[in-house]
Amino acid sequence: MTEAADGVRLTDAQRIEWLRLIRSANVGPRTFRTLINHFGGAGPALAALPDLARRGGASGPGHICSVAEAERELAAAQAAGVAFVALGEPGYPLRLRMIDDAPPLLAVRGNFAALTLPLVAIVGARNASAAGVKFTERLARALGEAGFGIVSGLARGIDAAAHRASLATGTVAVLAGGHDRIYPAEHAPLLEALLSAGAAVSEMPFGWEPRARDFPRRNRLISGLSLGVVVIEAAQRSGSLITARLALEQGREVFAVPGSPIDPRSEGTNRLLKQGATLVTEASDIVAVLRPIIGRLPDLPAEEPDMPVSEPMAEPGRDERNRIIALLGPTPVAIDDLIRISGSTPAIVRMVLLELEIAGRLERGGGGMVSLPPSA
Amino acid sequence: MTEAADGVRLTDAQRIEWLRLIRSANVGPRTFRTLINHFGGAGPALAALPDLARRGGASGPGHICSVAEAERELAAAQAAGVAFVALGEPGYPLRLRMIDDAPPLLAVRGNFAALTLPLVAIVGARNASAAGVKFTERLARALGEAGFGIVSGLARGIDAAAHRASLATGTVAVLAGGHDRIYPAEHAPLLEALLSAGAAVSEMPFGWEPRARDFPRRNRLISGLSLGVVVIEAAQRSGSLITARLALEQGREVFAVPGSPIDPRSEGTNRLLKQGATLVTEASDIVAVLRPIIGRLPDLPAEEPDMPVSEPMAEPGRDERNRIIALLGPTPVAIDDLIRISGSTPAIVRMVLLELEIAGRLERGGGGMVSLPPSA
Repeated sequence: MTEAADGVRLTDAQRIEWLRLIRSANVGPRTFRTLINHFGGAGPALAALPDLARRGGASGPGHICSVAEAERELAAAQAAGVAFVALGEPGYPLRLRMIDDAPPLLAVRGNFAALTLPLVAIVGARNASAAGVKFTERLARALGEAGFGIVSGLARGIDAAAHRASLATGTVAVLAGGHDRIYPAEHAPLLEALLSAGAAVSEMPFGWEPRARDFPRRNRLISGLSLGVVVIEAAQRSGSLITARLALEQGREVFAVPGSPIDPRSEGTNRLLKQGATLVTEASDIVAVLRPIIGRLPDLPAEEPDMPVSEPMAEPGRDERNRIIALLGPTPVAIDDLIRISGSTPAIVRMVLLELEIAGRLERGGGGMVSLPPSA
Repeated sequence: MTEAADGVRLTDAQRIEWLRLIRSANVGPRTFRTLINHFGGAGPALAALPDLARRGGASGPGHICSVAEAERELAAAQAAGVAFVALGEPGYPLRLRMIDDAPPLLAVRGNFAALTLPLVAIVGARNASAAGVKFTERLARALGEAGFGIVSGLARGIDAAAHRASLATGTVAVLAGGHDRIYPAEHAPLLEALLSAGAAVSEMPFGWEPRARDFPRRNRLISGLSLGVVVIEAAQRSGSLITARLALEQGREVFAVPGSPIDPRSEGTNRLLKQGATLVTEASDIVAVLRPIIGRLPDLPAEEPDMPVSEPMAEPGRDERNRIIALLGPTPVAIDDLIRISGSTPAIVRMVLLELEIAGRLERGGGGMVSLPPSA
């Protein structure tokens, strides 16, 4: 029962170029993919960055990661037992590569075999109740015995209980910071303990101290790695509910554990149940849903309208660029509408948006919405 | 927002005859209806009982309630402020008269207006948790304020909390014994307190001490009176789950309150949720489902195959009767199969079954199944 992916390895030089590109200013996983597709590789994309930023109206030159910086990070990673695996390489987690903002490079520490297990995420409240912790342990143990690996976020409460109960069978901790910045620090021994059968993964640079906004971003990896997400004890507006929402967007199964309506820690899970999440009182509730889809790839979310991989982008003239930029403002607008109203070709509009993005001016919302906040 | 029924009143003499018939041996609500339909009234049915019992092979003469006994019960009831309302009379609860084993006579004490409220049953564990009791109070209060009357069974735990929180807005206690045999005795003051805005109802004779098997029978009245049943904290194989099953059979809505899988008191409710009950964390979850169906009568369950009201029954000859009885045994068989295999007409088979029933020999299961246990 595995979920192993095949693929082709990058050369060492390519790996350096990939790392440089994703570590450069204003290049996120989606933009990385757009750049690679347009310029044919990370090298040409790196060379094009200054010009793109200038045309997008950058206030100054954005940081472009140097070869030396990239080599330093690779060396530090290697010294710490961390390997970088690139999107499309063998060893890159099968399901993660299907999400549209999959990290181009994933830094992995520990046992790669854990990433080929069918994975289930277990997430929940940091201030978990004793009942919640006990149920988490019971569930994670049973899922591990059934052949599933457990993914979680190394947080206090539910996360830690899920990891602890699956140390022997395989568990994956997804970090919001670099591999050398474990949060919370008190869980460093737990992380070490899980590495023999399991793994820790991160998309963030070495030395990156996780900030509040890195956790929601990290949560898409927790759901993206997994066949489904189980939420145990979650208040309204909690990170666990973000993970559940991302799971739905990624076409993953969502499970929730019921709890007393008197307990605020159950508000989020009970709401998920009302919205159609599968109710879980024992591991077999999860296994029955997930076993049939192991090895079957998820239905891909519709390709975002701004990222048709095959269509080449064109260079806009200055007037056309200014006209498109003038149509943008702080109110998010759909890219489709922007194309229609501008009268420009989709390829031209997309190039202008890429320029603005590399210049650090564009904001992307969900569902292909873009906006241009007032310059600082 | 009421659920009042119209109808025609019985004469005093008819009421005595109805009471005599339902208080006679081996006459339950279903047989009562069959007898009335076949013989055209309670008087002729009473006259026919000895002959029916003899033909059905009764070991001895079954008890037939005398006029004096019935008058004594009526007088005792009247003295205790209890009124008998007959199926089909105004004042008989609208929804209760739609169930196929509705009591021919319902003994009501308290405020009849409570029975015309749209009613919701709230049932649950006797050994309720503090959280369960608190949630019950909150829910019953909110439903009362929304114009619903609360039906329950006067038991310890959830039932008592539901009654207490709806004393002012109207609550109905359904008793498993006679009105003069309150169980548990410690709830006699609670019962008195609920009578001003609410009511207590029973189908059992005055002086009847409730036995264990009377509670499941009583539960069909709790669900039968109500638009829906809310189950709060119920273990596996609990009386509350019987009420939920009866509610489904009667075409009523079933609601359940989620709870931790660690707590055995949640096993029943979580299972109901898995089976499709509506998840409840606040009163509006219930109101949203029930408000649209107030005043609309439920879809009737399919008429039981042995009780077509219109078709007259026929008298079987002795050979035919013996042949049909010989086909019966301790293994339950569907009446439809019995008709087919016997080669007799449905009317003949039904009459033989009625005779056996009045003789106290027939056992009826669910879904039109009958069996003939070995004679004692």
